[in-house]
Amino acid sequence: MLSKAKIKYLNSLKNNKGRTKSGCFMVEGDKMVEDILQSNLIITELYAQNHWLEELGVSDKNKIGRIVEINSGEMKKVSNLISPHNVIAVVKIPEPDHDTNPPANNLSLALDRIQDPGNLGTIIRTAAWFGIENVYCSNDSVDVYNPKVVQSTMSALLKVNVRYTDLSSLMKWYIKNSLPVYGTFINGEDIFMGDLHSEGLILMGNESGGISSLLQESVTHRIAIPHYPASQDSRIESLNVASATAIVCAEFRRRT
Amino acid sequence: MLSKAKIKYLNSLKNNKGRTKSGCFMVEGDKMVEDILQSNLIITELYAQNHWLEELGVSDKNKIGRIVEINSGEMKKVSNLISPHNVIAVVKIPEPDHDTNPPANNLSLALDRIQDPGNLGTIIRTAAWFGIENVYCSNDSVDVYNPKVVQSTMSALLKVNVRYTDLSSLMKWYIKNSLPVYGTFINGEDIFMGDLHSEGLILMGNESGGISSLLQESVTHRIAIPHYPASQDSRIESLNVASATAIVCAEFRRRT
Repeated sequence: MLSKAKIKYLNSLKNNKGRTKSGCFMVEGDKMVEDILQSNLIITELYAQNHWLEELGVSDKNKIGRIVEINSGEMKKVSNLISPHNVIAVVKIPEPDHDTNPPANNLSLALDRIQDPGNLGTIIRTAAWFGIENVYCSNDSVDVYNPKVVQSTMSALLKVNVRYTDLSSLMKWYIKNSLPVYGTFINGEDIFMGDLHSEGLILMGNESGGISSLLQESVTHRIAIPHYPASQDSRIESLNVASATAIVCAEFRRRT
Repeated sequence: MLSKAKIKYLNSLKNNKGRTKSGCFMVEGDKMVEDILQSNLIITELYAQNHWLEELGVSDKNKIGRIVEINSGEMKKVSNLISPHNVIAVVKIPEPDHDTNPPANNLSLALDRIQDPGNLGTIIRTAAWFGIENVYCSNDSVDVYNPKVVQSTMSALLKVNVRYTDLSSLMKWYIKNSLPVYGTFINGEDIFMGDLHSEGLILMGNESGGISSLLQESVTHRIAIPHYPASQDSRIESLNVASATAIVCAEFRRRT
């Protein structure tokens, strides 16, 4: 049974303000909630349909703050999805990791003002696939705990550290430590031709504006994904930023 | 000024039924509408704010069936976007091209039951970037004229022929013509290692179910995108289908 106050609370988690106030975010769906039960994250509340709860083991039940059985009609009132799943978990937002030094022996990703929740979620999923453990977002990027981001990560959020930071300082740290900072540009060097290192930072830019001019200055290696055929007029074409990130990460990993 | 009947009509274009009835689809935004004005597509109606119409040249005006000036409040009533743009065009759905033989001298894409509009739009954009002119969707895929698909193609729809067809027959045509049919599988051959041809069909599967078992039989080359590091437990990770398509297309084009 879902009270009006609870409906209001769950809906408040769909926006930044509500999440900041409560320190929690929402996750929907069997697979993702099961993955969270296997992780170090804390589920403060869980709302599920009867048949889902019947399958939940005792040890998992003990990990959850509060369990509420709800029906499919109630699920629709709080779900973010057109076709709601069987379960919604309210999860405590983990404290940011204050070990601020990026890993000098691996690749990391930096994202400049990514706005689309699906793009951020998809990029985090790509990072997890390619063993990129750290993703740095500019402070004005979409919030990683936005429910649309969370859903599109498909649990990859559990494998990747996502931090919000001043990218300019981050890039300067790489330069100071003699590590390359890659950035994608229309007129960059063909990524398939140039040297790529297995350590450093890869910077991807905003959906419509690309990399901001301030950050461009700190890019040490300008790369580009060539279109095909090379002679083709590319006035209309552009790549989605999550697709471009996937191609870039795959190419870095192919070389190593 | 936007009549109630027009608001109803424009909103009907958001679903399949309304588009089938009218034979039209909707496009929003300066850049995409400008690209359509440069294309062979026919704009039957155009709804725009005053300042946008003032910039529209006479020759462009003559290409448009009917022009209606609306204000930003009216735009919000019919837009599909959270932040509506300055212009919405109603565009005639082009007749499907009945030249059914796929190109034997190029790569084409086949999409098995892609359901997410953003994924289909992003894949069409990737296809345009990599000079893949033909994308074949299974009949039960999301409709390419769904406004969310249209918006996420970012005009690439104008460069790629998207057809809905029986993929099984299509794949048999490739086999009969001794052309390879590539399909992505978890346990396929590492795409970075095997031979890749510059002609053939690349089949990508549904977001959660992958390639359907019926179609699997007609795949002649099973490929996979390796995750990193290879030793890592990949239970949680998977790639978004649009990201996977981007990586696969990039690798085919890198080799040629």
